[in-house]
Amino acid sequence: MELADTLASIGESATLGRIFPRLPAAAAQLLGPGDDAAVIAAPDGRFVVTTDMMIHGPDFRLAWSTGHDLGWKAAATNLADVAAMGAVPTALVVAIAAPAHTEVAFLEAIADGLREGCAAMAPGCGVVGGDLSVSATLTIAVTAFGDLEGRAPVTRAGARPGDVVAVSGPLGASATALALLFAEGVHEGEPHRETTDRLRAREGAALAAQLAPTPPIADGPRAALAGATAMIDLSDGLALDARRVAAASGVAIDLDTASAGSREALVGGEDHSLLATFPAGTRLPGGFRAIGVVREGSGVLVGGHLFDALGGWDPYLAWDGQRG
Amino acid sequence: MELADTLASIGESATLGRIFPRLPAAAAQLLGPGDDAAVIAAPDGRFVVTTDMMIHGPDFRLAWSTGHDLGWKAAATNLADVAAMGAVPTALVVAIAAPAHTEVAFLEAIADGLREGCAAMAPGCGVVGGDLSVSATLTIAVTAFGDLEGRAPVTRAGARPGDVVAVSGPLGASATALALLFAEGVHEGEPHRETTDRLRAREGAALAAQLAPTPPIADGPRAALAGATAMIDLSDGLALDARRVAAASGVAIDLDTASAGSREALVGGEDHSLLATFPAGTRLPGGFRAIGVVREGSGVLVGGHLFDALGGWDPYLAWDGQRG
Repeated sequence: MELADTLASIGESATLGRIFPRLPAAAAQLLGPGDDAAVIAAPDGRFVVTTDMMIHGPDFRLAWSTGHDLGWKAAATNLADVAAMGAVPTALVVAIAAPAHTEVAFLEAIADGLREGCAAMAPGCGVVGGDLSVSATLTIAVTAFGDLEGRAPVTRAGARPGDVVAVSGPLGASATALALLFAEGVHEGEPHRETTDRLRAREGAALAAQLAPTPPIADGPRAALAGATAMIDLSDGLALDARRVAAASGVAIDLDTASAGSREALVGGEDHSLLATFPAGTRLPGGFRAIGVVREGSGVLVGGHLFDALGGWDPYLAWDGQRG
Repeated sequence: MELADTLASIGESATLGRIFPRLPAAAAQLLGPGDDAAVIAAPDGRFVVTTDMMIHGPDFRLAWSTGHDLGWKAAATNLADVAAMGAVPTALVVAIAAPAHTEVAFLEAIADGLREGCAAMAPGCGVVGGDLSVSATLTIAVTAFGDLEGRAPVTRAGARPGDVVAVSGPLGASATALALLFAEGVHEGEPHRETTDRLRAREGAALAAQLAPTPPIADGPRAALAGATAMIDLSDGLALDARRVAAASGVAIDLDTASAGSREALVGGEDHSLLATFPAGTRLPGGFRAIGVVREGSGVLVGGHLFDALGGWDPYLAWDGQRG
């Protein structure tokens, strides 16, 4: 039996040589990997930047996520933060720390997920640099950049009473998929790969909402062009993230019971859908649909009633740091 | 006895509230922390970007490094990569993943190290965003940005036969300090805090070369202005990094025996000094001193003789992933 190449067996330099050709190119790249730093175009004299780490245990389980899933999701979550400013994503840098025994094929799959995720969600955006290290804990840190194309950034602070509240992308689909994984992707109470593989064959599309989500990145700049007054990426659930917009803008956000009133929609995290507010009468762009209105006041209402339960228990936190 | 606040005991949000006020502000920041992403000025329509992760175990030991050391070094290593392009550092984003039991005071010390390191090495550069996560392994991922001020980036590829080879910053001081830590900062063969504290009281300045280095960041832009043809940050030792410049430029680099011929200088890593080449006759800027010449050929020579031993054993790699 031939042993699979690992990070330890072929070394950092050879591993990078296997990963680099799989990474997506960035149209904005002026000078790419291979020097001390890269140089990226910022045509309007500014750039948008966000960073997010994914940690084995709190953020994902290797029994559930493939390398491809992890690369795709690392792209998706960061691209959504760029899009939520109304910017077009231009480039990523990716730092990966992995145990020495990690198979190179797994790291190649992460690169494939980054490439295919960028191609699907933000064509032209690519990886312009990175870092590969050894760690006891698999960690993927992505920093993403975007171009505002001369527009003002769309912050969380601009919502005004009378604005329409709209969302693009699913509400609660990621939490529903996570519940399915905890119910059926386990064996004797633990996340389990073979069980998950069978579940994936049956429910792949549903699971993708959690494992490899596809937030509507292009709708970020579309919302900005349509005059969005505030925008946020739904990382922590509609109720909590809408409350952030309400607090930053000094308003209340009143959500429709019918379109946003389910428990999964309100408190389910990690959809990375875009929540935006638009002046009344705006023709909503892309996949945006109205789910409420902005009112004077504070906090989040559902059907006119104050909604206080903002988030659920995060089942990832129960992980003890040593298991799969 | 009052228990110290930890990441787990006060939570992510309160911890961020303690860290944020200690972080350095960036003059280039147009929109800072608190939204989905930050917006940074890029006055000449481009920005330089580099990313580097520090991992507990392979990159540092908690028995040797204080939180302040780690913040300072995380800034220093990334600022040096920006400076090596000839750019002025403008901003950092910092993602930290730490065990749940990590004391908030330790994370505050990291922030203090970032702030004081930026103030000392790159005034005006600040932290514009970040991410805080829980992980079994303490991990600090920094992405740094720089402004080329309209100049072309100084890459590794421009050295020409006849150029002077020069360095700014120490050669081998970091490796010497690491050897001292392995010799005297241990107890029964293991890195040990109390032993190290006594060593630090006696040899603090020497140890700082490894634990909290101060590379000559301002000399990066100075070198570019003086016409540097190639530049690199000395991460992996003079011999290996000079070989990278030689390979990228298609030349040989011949180092003086007297100024660069010691084993520590040649193979000791992590000085983060700047190695640059300048046209013959250039008045060397800042702290640069001549240590050799560029010749036709390939590889690294010392006193005219090919030097093949490029790097030493990395003692950090002997760490087993579980110890201090």
